[in-house]
Amino acid sequence: MERVPPQEIHQRLATFQTDLAAHGLDGVLLFQNVDIFYFSGTIQSSILFIPTQGDPTLMVQKGFQRVKEESPLKNIVAVNGKSHLSNTLQDFGVRGVKHLGLELDVLPAQLYVWLAETFPQCRFVDVSVSIRRRRMVKSAYETDQIRKAAAILHQGYMEIQGFIKEGVSELEIDGRLAFIARREGHMGILRMRGWNQEMTHAHVLSGDSGSVVSFLNSPHGGSGNTPAMAQGASFRRIRKNEPVGIDYGVGINGYLADQFRTFVIGDLPPQLAKAHQCSREIHDLFAQEAKPGVPCAHLYAMAKEFASQAGLDDYFMGHGEGQVRFIGHGLGLEIDEFPLIAPNFEGALAQNMVIAYEPKFVFPGQGVVGMEDDYLVTPTGVERLTLTEQELIKLKP
Amino acid sequence: MERVPPQEIHQRLATFQTDLAAHGLDGVLLFQNVDIFYFSGTIQSSILFIPTQGDPTLMVQKGFQRVKEESPLKNIVAVNGKSHLSNTLQDFGVRGVKHLGLELDVLPAQLYVWLAETFPQCRFVDVSVSIRRRRMVKSAYETDQIRKAAAILHQGYMEIQGFIKEGVSELEIDGRLAFIARREGHMGILRMRGWNQEMTHAHVLSGDSGSVVSFLNSPHGGSGNTPAMAQGASFRRIRKNEPVGIDYGVGINGYLADQFRTFVIGDLPPQLAKAHQCSREIHDLFAQEAKPGVPCAHLYAMAKEFASQAGLDDYFMGHGEGQVRFIGHGLGLEIDEFPLIAPNFEGALAQNMVIAYEPKFVFPGQGVVGMEDDYLVTPTGVERLTLTEQELIKLKP
Repeated sequence: MERVPPQEIHQRLATFQTDLAAHGLDGVLLFQNVDIFYFSGTIQSSILFIPTQGDPTLMVQKGFQRVKEESPLKNIVAVNGKSHLSNTLQDFGVRGVKHLGLELDVLPAQLYVWLAETFPQCRFVDVSVSIRRRRMVKSAYETDQIRKAAAILHQGYMEIQGFIKEGVSELEIDGRLAFIARREGHMGILRMRGWNQEMTHAHVLSGDSGSVVSFLNSPHGGSGNTPAMAQGASFRRIRKNEPVGIDYGVGINGYLADQFRTFVIGDLPPQLAKAHQCSREIHDLFAQEAKPGVPCAHLYAMAKEFASQAGLDDYFMGHGEGQVRFIGHGLGLEIDEFPLIAPNFEGALAQNMVIAYEPKFVFPGQGVVGMEDDYLVTPTGVERLTLTEQELIKLKP
Repeated sequence: MERVPPQEIHQRLATFQTDLAAHGLDGVLLFQNVDIFYFSGTIQSSILFIPTQGDPTLMVQKGFQRVKEESPLKNIVAVNGKSHLSNTLQDFGVRGVKHLGLELDVLPAQLYVWLAETFPQCRFVDVSVSIRRRRMVKSAYETDQIRKAAAILHQGYMEIQGFIKEGVSELEIDGRLAFIARREGHMGILRMRGWNQEMTHAHVLSGDSGSVVSFLNSPHGGSGNTPAMAQGASFRRIRKNEPVGIDYGVGINGYLADQFRTFVIGDLPPQLAKAHQCSREIHDLFAQEAKPGVPCAHLYAMAKEFASQAGLDDYFMGHGEGQVRFIGHGLGLEIDEFPLIAPNFEGALAQNMVIAYEPKFVFPGQGVVGMEDDYLVTPTGVERLTLTEQELIKLKP
């Protein structure tokens, strides 16, 4: 099993500690799996204290032996129950801390209330945004994991072409994609940070399914086969001459790749074919314009303007109440990472960001078309990490 | 698509309102998908206000049309942004509320802090335990959904026997189980309430994989194929004469079934065969003793005593730091529902609870054996809902 290289962890901690100092914090206490994994290399049940200066302490509730094998941190201690935890926290530096960072976007209220009672001297500050901004820029190790995940997606898009036939259900295609992903080493889940956001590993959306709005913060949701999940594949069967949009995600060593391709048995209706071509052209435009220093909001505006010129405003990134106001998002340990390629995201592209860029068009009653690809920001532009040809995938009836 | 029958929702609300009155609350504000689904029939992006008396209001942030189709509630209003939300909350009854219930175990701290600032007159009380206690007892509709999910698990356990062969990887078997589940209509995720608890849809654990401890609150974790997920199937290949433990979950209309069976190509080592037989006998004992009124802690103690008499104490429900202190759990919209069949769970079985009962034994370096089945508590005993024969499943080499 591949572990996170120790120098990755040490580098991440060092740069994050400079952020903490800049924000006037004495340290942070991290509780969430993903953030703990990023700074320690393990997701075993634990809490991580990172002081602004000095060595962090990982307090382990379950999986102690495994933590010792997986994490390069020096201070790893077993804790048992809440009173032991509070004593340990005191021992390892929270005593006397006045400004403590917490992940207020994900930390459960119950834990927050407990911390407020246990450390009455502390003022709590949200550090989620700092962590997420730090995680935007990837190391070569991180990008390599995304490349591996992207290779599995490509394999899936190739293999699945043999199974997309008239009369086959969306759910059967979804299941085959799940099989391919796991067989090739997909870690089994896709993580999303947003509150109440839940995801199936793929969206297989044929015809009108592609235009069904869902709670998910995505241009397409799909009906799913129950209001209890309300997204993704259903028992609807594939037909000729309609778009079959497939959004597909895979995770390798925590890192996600995220892609979308449109398939059709036969031909798309002319307006949808035009919109698919427009998605391709927006990708080309992005590949020309995107480079370090370009504001994310500008990249969004450019794409929206292009779609508008093509007369596709009403279908751009969803339709009606399903329309979303972004065209891309960062990608890493979570699928909804920074930066957002969105009108109200402050910031510009920087070298070694990874972006999932997804110009899509949704036609009510007809479906979703477009393409999503993952790009690495290089010193002078972007490099595409996803491997599948940027074309509508036409299948013989 | 099947919707939640309106009378289910009305009945749930009515009984929950009697709980709220008994606790002296003026109402509750629910934010989490699962709780909102239970009381409204939809998981579209929304917030649900249930006053102790009168009609609830569902405030919808995304998916308004879908909510109107899915939910039988009368007051459904669209809200847009936080200030609109706070005004709407004021309009629909939170104004003047003094004691407001919240889901403090899952609500993010950020939202909690916002609520505290927005409604300074309110005292907040945790209602998670009340909701979870209320959800313990299932209606006939809910039990039917679990039966449907259990039928898919059985189909999976039958089909997978054709694929478990020497040299096949755990991940390939896991992938085939994913394919079968989705093809048959599995909703695509399994929900777990516990903080930081994450689950793959199945655990396929062969030989020593079955004894690898993980952060998951389960007797088995497995190595997984990365520290970033750290549970479930890996690239390890199946061998002869070792246990292949398969934990498998499926969800239908939100409701989960959860089962475990042990497979072997050839024969188990004698001590593991004995432990598997002991799991079978503990199931028989449960089927004889379990009925309304029997304390959950007694059922745990009885099983533990039986395992102890068989000399299997050290391996019962995990080994070493992986040992967990429960032998069963409630099952419904979440996989970690009440009641717990555990020494420190207060309460007894009641009619129409559904319990996943999982006597398992973990042998370091050798693996996990046992069986898990789902039971409905009837007026006089329990009825098994899972369909697969209660036997070790022996396959020809």
